[in-house]
Amino acid sequence: MRDETSAGDEDVPPSTRERFITATNELFRRQGFHGTSLKQVTGAAGAPIGSLYHHFPGGKDELTGAVLASSGAVYQELFELIWDAADDPGAGVRDFFEGAALVLEETDFIDPCPIGSVAREVASTNDELRQAAHRVFENWIGSLTARLEQEGLGQSVAHDLATTLVGAVEGGFVIARTAKDATILRTSGRQMARVVESAVGAAQSQAGGGNES
Amino acid sequence: MRDETSAGDEDVPPSTRERFITATNELFRRQGFHGTSLKQVTGAAGAPIGSLYHHFPGGKDELTGAVLASSGAVYQELFELIWDAADDPGAGVRDFFEGAALVLEETDFIDPCPIGSVAREVASTNDELRQAAHRVFENWIGSLTARLEQEGLGQSVAHDLATTLVGAVEGGFVIARTAKDATILRTSGRQMARVVESAVGAAQSQAGGGNES
Repeated sequence: MRDETSAGDEDVPPSTRERFITATNELFRRQGFHGTSLKQVTGAAGAPIGSLYHHFPGGKDELTGAVLASSGAVYQELFELIWDAADDPGAGVRDFFEGAALVLEETDFIDPCPIGSVAREVASTNDELRQAAHRVFENWIGSLTARLEQEGLGQSVAHDLATTLVGAVEGGFVIARTAKDATILRTSGRQMARVVESAVGAAQSQAGGGNES
Repeated sequence: MRDETSAGDEDVPPSTRERFITATNELFRRQGFHGTSLKQVTGAAGAPIGSLYHHFPGGKDELTGAVLASSGAVYQELFELIWDAADDPGAGVRDFFEGAALVLEETDFIDPCPIGSVAREVASTNDELRQAAHRVFENWIGSLTARLEQEGLGQSVAHDLATTLVGAVEGGFVIARTAKDATILRTSGRQMARVVESAVGAAQSQAGGGNES
């Protein structure tokens, strides 16, 4: 069960607001943005439409923006926990992709997170939501870039690698859900782990005087 | 302009059937599966609803399956042309990702192909269309696997690499559209080209007696 306490949002009753966000998140994972109505959201959240507009005066768009930000933060925290607990960067990459594969298998391949799917549905028609999804991806890439820099990679190399990794996760979700088979996430995880290990090895060998090159 | 001749489909008048497929493809790229109505399709194709059901008795689902198969075949042919024209596998990968980046930039970042987006919208709710999208991805992976095997890679290594590459393209489309910036496709293209070059180099060095290892 999710903790319904909303950090850093003290002006509104967190439990009702969070209930709307959680219900919408779950509906998006199964049926996407266009497939989800506010009537379904209020039904699933067990709260009336007036309450929804109290918390989200901008209606579905504002609610969706909050879902993207919330889901994005949860995933980022999860990634950081996994990475920081891993013995080395390669293991961190493998563990994260393995965790994503398990989530897909345990939830019968419903969408693991709504950010990519909502982004894909609205990128050409709703610029506010496109930007909300973009901010999430930027945060993920920023977090991973910082961790790769800590391993000795230059900023530009770290950023390129982080961008490629986030793309591989998002693409892996698409292929795995379509195949109802999470193998691609494990395969991509192994391949990406080797890319990261090779980049870290090159950076550390360069920092050590380049004797191993 | 697209050639409206439909290869290998001689039982139905190709021009009307193809017009439905092309119109639906364009609508999906802008507004997705759930966002597109059959009324919009018949309007854009300039043909009545009776004609649509004549060509696609299964209605929207059958039409969508045909769009996925058609779009999938066009992309596969494009990939094969680019790969076969490239000097080496690394250049083939870079050229394909570069082509995808250019398409996004020239079309104001509408979805380059509807397969991934439709798959994401319906994977949990429409098993027939999920399988249609799955067949497209399998064909792409098969085509790329065969080409990597021609470069000396073992079947299993080639298949893993091909799967990772298709995932990187699909994920790159999501991030690039969300950012309205195609940089990730070029970045991923460079990184994936190096992975392919390294795998091909290792395979060829092994085949040559392993002197360079």
